[in-house]
Amino acid sequence: MAKSKYEYVKEFETDDKMLRNVYVLVRIDGKGFHKFSQTHNFAKPNDVRGISLMNHAARCVMHELDDIVIAFGESDEYSFLFRKSTDLYQRRESKIVSTVVSLFTSAYVYYWNDYFTELKRPLYPPVFDGRAVLYPSEVEVKDYFAWRQADTHINNLFNTSFWALVEEGGLTPKAAEARLCGTDSKDKNEMLFTEFNTNYSKLPAMYRKGSVLLREQIPKDADKDAIIPTLPETLPGSKSAKVTPAPDTATITLKNGPDSISEPVSEAPSGQTTPVTVVNPVVSQDAVMQERINNSSSSEDKKRSIDANEAEQQDAEGEPVAKKDVPAFKRMKKGVVIDHIDIIGEKFWTGRGAYILAPEKKKKLHS
Amino acid sequence: MAKSKYEYVKEFETDDKMLRNVYVLVRIDGKGFHKFSQTHNFAKPNDVRGISLMNHAARCVMHELDDIVIAFGESDEYSFLFRKSTDLYQRRESKIVSTVVSLFTSAYVYYWNDYFTELKRPLYPPVFDGRAVLYPSEVEVKDYFAWRQADTHINNLFNTSFWALVEEGGLTPKAAEARLCGTDSKDKNEMLFTEFNTNYSKLPAMYRKGSVLLREQIPKDADKDAIIPTLPETLPGSKSAKVTPAPDTATITLKNGPDSISEPVSEAPSGQTTPVTVVNPVVSQDAVMQERINNSSSSEDKKRSIDANEAEQQDAEGEPVAKKDVPAFKRMKKGVVIDHIDIIGEKFWTGRGAYILAPEKKKKLHS
Amino acid sequence: MAKSKYEYVKEFETDDKMLRNVYVLVRIDGKGFHKFSQTHNFAKPNDVRGISLMNHAARCVMHELDDIVIAFGESDEYSFLFRKSTDLYQRRESKIVSTVVSLFTSAYVYYWNDYFTELKRPLYPPVFDGRAVLYPSEVEVKDYFAWRQADTHINNLFNTSFWALVEEGGLTPKAAEARLCGTDSKDKNEMLFTEFNTNYSKLPAMYRKGSVLLREQIPKDADKDAIIPTLPETLPGSKSAKVTPAPDTATITLKNGPDSISEPVSEAPSGQTTPVTVVNPVVSQDAVMQERINNSSSSEDKKRSIDANEAEQQDAEGEPVAKKDVPAFKRMKKGVVIDHIDIIGEKFWTGRGAYILAPEKKKKLHS
Amino acid sequence: MAKSKYEYVKEFETDDKMLRNVYVLVRIDGKGFHKFSQTHNFAKPNDVRGISLMNHAARCVMHELDDIVIAFGESDEYSFLFRKSTDLYQRRESKIVSTVVSLFTSAYVYYWNDYFTELKRPLYPPVFDGRAVLYPSEVEVKDYFAWRQADTHINNLFNTSFWALVEEGGLTPKAAEARLCGTDSKDKNEMLFTEFNTNYSKLPAMYRKGSVLLREQIPKDADKDAIIPTLPETLPGSKSAKVTPAPDTATITLKNGPDSISEPVSEAPSGQTTPVTVVNPVVSQDAVMQERINNSSSSEDKKRSIDANEAEQQDAEGEPVAKKDVPAFKRMKKGVVIDHIDIIGEKFWTGRGAYILAPEKKKKLHS
Repeated sequence: MAKSKYEYVKEFETDDKMLRNVYVLVRIDGKGFHKFSQTHNFAKPNDVRGISLMNHAARCVMHELDDIVIAFGESDEYSFLFRKSTDLYQRRESKIVSTVVSLFTSAYVYYWNDYFTELKRPLYPPVFDGRAVLYPSEVEVKDYFAWRQADTHINNLFNTSFWALVEEGGLTPKAAEARLCGTDSKDKNEMLFTEFNTNYSKLPAMYRKGSVLLREQIPKDADKDAIIPTLPETLPGSKSAKVTPAPDTATITLKNGPDSISEPVSEAPSGQTTPVTVVNPVVSQDAVMQERINNSSSSEDKKRSIDANEAEQQDAEGEPVAKKDVPAFKRMKKGVVIDHIDIIGEKFWTGRGAYILAPEKKKKLHS
Repeated sequence: MAKSKYEYVKEFETDDKMLRNVYVLVRIDGKGFHKFSQTHNFAKPNDVRGISLMNHAARCVMHELDDIVIAFGESDEYSFLFRKSTDLYQRRESKIVSTVVSLFTSAYVYYWNDYFTELKRPLYPPVFDGRAVLYPSEVEVKDYFAWRQADTHINNLFNTSFWALVEEGGLTPKAAEARLCGTDSKDKNEMLFTEFNTNYSKLPAMYRKGSVLLREQIPKDADKDAIIPTLPETLPGSKSAKVTPAPDTATITLKNGPDSISEPVSEAPSGQTTPVTVVNPVVSQDAVMQERINNSSSSEDKKRSIDANEAEQQDAEGEPVAKKDVPAFKRMKKGVVIDHIDIIGEKFWTGRGAYILAPEKKKKLHS
Repeated sequence: MAKSKYEYVKEFETDDKMLRNVYVLVRIDGKGFHKFSQTHNFAKPNDVRGISLMNHAARCVMHELDDIVIAFGESDEYSFLFRKSTDLYQRRESKIVSTVVSLFTSAYVYYWNDYFTELKRPLYPPVFDGRAVLYPSEVEVKDYFAWRQADTHINNLFNTSFWALVEEGGLTPKAAEARLCGTDSKDKNEMLFTEFNTNYSKLPAMYRKGSVLLREQIPKDADKDAIIPTLPETLPGSKSAKVTPAPDTATITLKNGPDSISEPVSEAPSGQTTPVTVVNPVVSQDAVMQERINNSSSSEDKKRSIDANEAEQQDAEGEPVAKKDVPAFKRMKKGVVIDHIDIIGEKFWTGRGAYILAPEKKKKLHS
Repeated sequence: MAKSKYEYVKEFETDDKMLRNVYVLVRIDGKGFHKFSQTHNFAKPNDVRGISLMNHAARCVMHELDDIVIAFGESDEYSFLFRKSTDLYQRRESKIVSTVVSLFTSAYVYYWNDYFTELKRPLYPPVFDGRAVLYPSEVEVKDYFAWRQADTHINNLFNTSFWALVEEGGLTPKAAEARLCGTDSKDKNEMLFTEFNTNYSKLPAMYRKGSVLLREQIPKDADKDAIIPTLPETLPGSKSAKVTPAPDTATITLKNGPDSISEPVSEAPSGQTTPVTVVNPVVSQDAVMQERINNSSSSEDKKRSIDANEAEQQDAEGEPVAKKDVPAFKRMKKGVVIDHIDIIGEKFWTGRGAYILAPEKKKKLHS
């Protein structure tokens, strides 16, 4: 059976290496997620479980692929920015896009039950697609993320208004849509305030601003990354190997043990993370909502907001808290942190996001 | 917040539509599956659970994407061939590749526990990557699949010999490799026969020939497709939502009820499927092995081989047989069937595979 | 001065190899030829000098690039079809397109004075652009050329009608356009016949059907190819170096009738081509027109139409007819011949054009 | 004759728009120019006529395509850099590359006789090919041109040494090559000095550094651009139509010294360019050589080097000098000037080349 006789078919494969020294942006989108969210009774206009699962999956992607410097998520989409000089898979487009999409999808299904605790798995396998876009300059990168966050704002304001009219106002969807037709942001804000007693700007930043994943310093004593076990290469300890089916009946109570902090706060070493309230992974939509409303404005003022919901993930991995007193993974210097902050405007890009666009050392290229 | 101000960044997206009227082949590969299979204690040289899960995931892909006419799987890779005239996503490369990869990955994680019943989910999320290759002519398509099946043969013969030497012969991996160095197929066959009493040609075709997914007529009274619930469009009944863990102890005996046939046999309506023994989804590697050895040669002579292992999947979906007397999905005319047959040589392509390369009606193209 | 220090910039070059085993079609177009033809007082609606120069340039391209199997020209555009298996420049798109365009342009300027004898060179350098299109199957190739020839017909019928109205009918261009608005082919044919005593179908085929360049057998004693001296490899004698301006006063003597021997006619053994009559390059537009009208219908019935204008080219190369009794280039087995025949419909593709789509021996591909 | 029936073949054309906001570099190369230069007896190691014709053709390209900001030529190659924001032909790669190549080729043949005055046209049509390369950043652009100029240096030093050994030293080519094998720049410089009394650094900068075309301010009273008549849009007067062969007997009068006024020097208000001295196109290779040797070092210190040969081109266009007191084309604000200066190192890029990399106003992009 001559192998070589057929091997010429490999010659039809084409080289799809992407241009060097430009930013590579991979954006993934849920396929048919309108239906998917309906089928799974996602809360409207935002489902904290769904958003948190998206964020968790995105963190897995960033955990695996070091060259991603920032990610942004809203609704059923997520954008990942690779640094200019990345040579991941020699910049082969299909390889990069398919790996990101596969990793995200895999994590989404894998961690489903940690967020949608009443369902072992979704009612059917969810699907995402993806594409790469190249951006040569910093300006476009900033504008890309501004574009997505502006989109988040517009969509969320509309959805919030729409569902207020439908669920609280009792309008039919058609009537609600008609009511909103032609209104601008100001109109919607006012309507929410006067008719539904809702101060839009006080709603959780996660809903209004989407989710931003950043690579930031993590304090030595944090083992936050341990919560995202993915491939064994990065996790030789195979901690995740010990995963056992989560007992249905367990009432998880998280103390302020080492894994308790969802977001390590390296820039504020003062231990301000102590009072972080870690809630049960079985998330109460209302509770989160309430909590966020109470805290959102101040949270945004803080240098690093803290995401109670993310914190829940930790236990989702199921290690009994008791075992956690010896953090397993201290070696990670840079961790993935999440926040829901403004990325429109220079403030972000000269502040926390400064590392993203910082000049890189000249990449040596050899044939 | 002017949306339009940033929207220009969309202009950087490039058109990646693939050439029309050529075959589109998407091949996916497991990333780091050497480690993945070790971590999960896959049986060597072949793990029937792992192969069956791959096949199941591939069937999901074909179930969703009508334009795939044949798929072939071996080890941790799967190849999907789209018909020449497919206009799926206007033939956008990234969209097609990423969708196939995502769907496959999603199904792999989703159905994991149906095959690896002792583990709720893998120890970490598995990842696949993918790429598209265009083939203009029938010759290349045939040679492509011949290439992959020849590869299957070469690898499996080597692996079978290697693991016989290691596990039965007590050699170290290094010694086993040295022993096999420089041997050809004949040498290995003989060694297996004389030293390990193994007639290689009697081993299960699934191991030796890989898995071939075909679109063939399914009898009206079959609801075989019901076993692959994926997107809600195709499965409005959300049957899979009711999935419950398969009882470990059940000895399922499938009558000729609607779901009983793992592979609907439209071409042989004589009811030859009656004696099909459907075993429990908790697969005994040895049992399958034995069964297959007994039957493989004749199975290959039959017009349609029957895959006991696939049959098991049905129950993996967990519906008690008793409930199945009213088939839920009769509307599907063409189903996806699996087999482990020769696809090297003209016999296949003029026989069961004839539909794959059959001339298509001229596709009307409009701008 | 370290060369290597900068050489990394080569890494930014991308691989633009085109898919294998599909037809490569390169089409070139004159840039701003509306103006170019006005500036140079091209005869309306067709200028035999301009068309002949285009044809000559196209022949140079085919003479140089063996893998071109057919070319078709009309107006200021020319299409070149490479055989499926061409490996010219490893099928690099830019290399192929730019070479064809450059060669064509070079020849167009180079041979200008042989056709436009009153001007040493054009009033400014003419420019062409080009692009490659891939066609996987024979059907598309046929339809491509049908598309271009149908276009030729439509344009020429319109232009003939338009200029009849303007030049003979005395209408303004605007009025002529208005008059033709909404008319179909039949209307225009009738108008030409009744108002301008012109039987459109008797006009020269070159105008109505465009020009088709084919590779056909050339008799051993023909030195037709000598008229296209291009690169030194093929023309070590540098015959063209001796080119001298054609004398303005030369009178055209067409021995074999007006349409006489444009091309060696191997398939027409009647000997009508011997001896090769070489006419003067100074073409009288009216003379050609007249002769063509007289002969065009029969010409089309002949197995090979004859192109007086092409014939003239021979002498353009300046060799006195007397010298031709010793053919200089016998080694060329396949020559490039020109005709103005129907390429719409199966007749051509199963007849003279059969070689174009004939199956090729399987191309061996090695990395 | 239904046009629409065939028009679907247009659907096979693919979109080849290049990424936006990156530099587009088009490099063209002579095909088989080793032979071409031998066939036409080019002087070794450098033929001033050949170089000047290349330069002239390159100027035509820049004259036509406004978005080219710099060009660099050496030997039989020329590189053209388009500004980042160019939207020429919507950045379609084939269109841009083929247009540049065609324009260059056309001009090369068109102006041949102005430089090679003893030959009406080359002995056969010369051919160039081309390709586009994208460069995202300024660093790569600088390094690209440094790469080409370093290449010029290396090649020219080798060629100068080689031909000195062969033509003056009487060595066979083989012996000369052996002699140079393993030598570095210093060795060659020394050999030239001690054995052939040649101070390499005093050789004309055009040979040692190649040719740089820049867009610089041209004084109002200069009509230098008139020498490059190309498309009628820019040259409605069709001045070039009146081109007459340059008189062989004209004596060269170089007012401003041998390297004198190749280009109008707006930045040098000393008036040294007035009146523009137009010299004869019949260049004496020796004369130029001699003059250049005498002046080259100082020439490089001058803010603008002067190219006697270029100056000659003016008359090549055939306008009697006397007629030039009334400049015909005053409207051109920016002209194309030529020089032979260092483009390796920051000095150039912060000096005369500063405009090339200057930030552009943000390009508005609309779908």
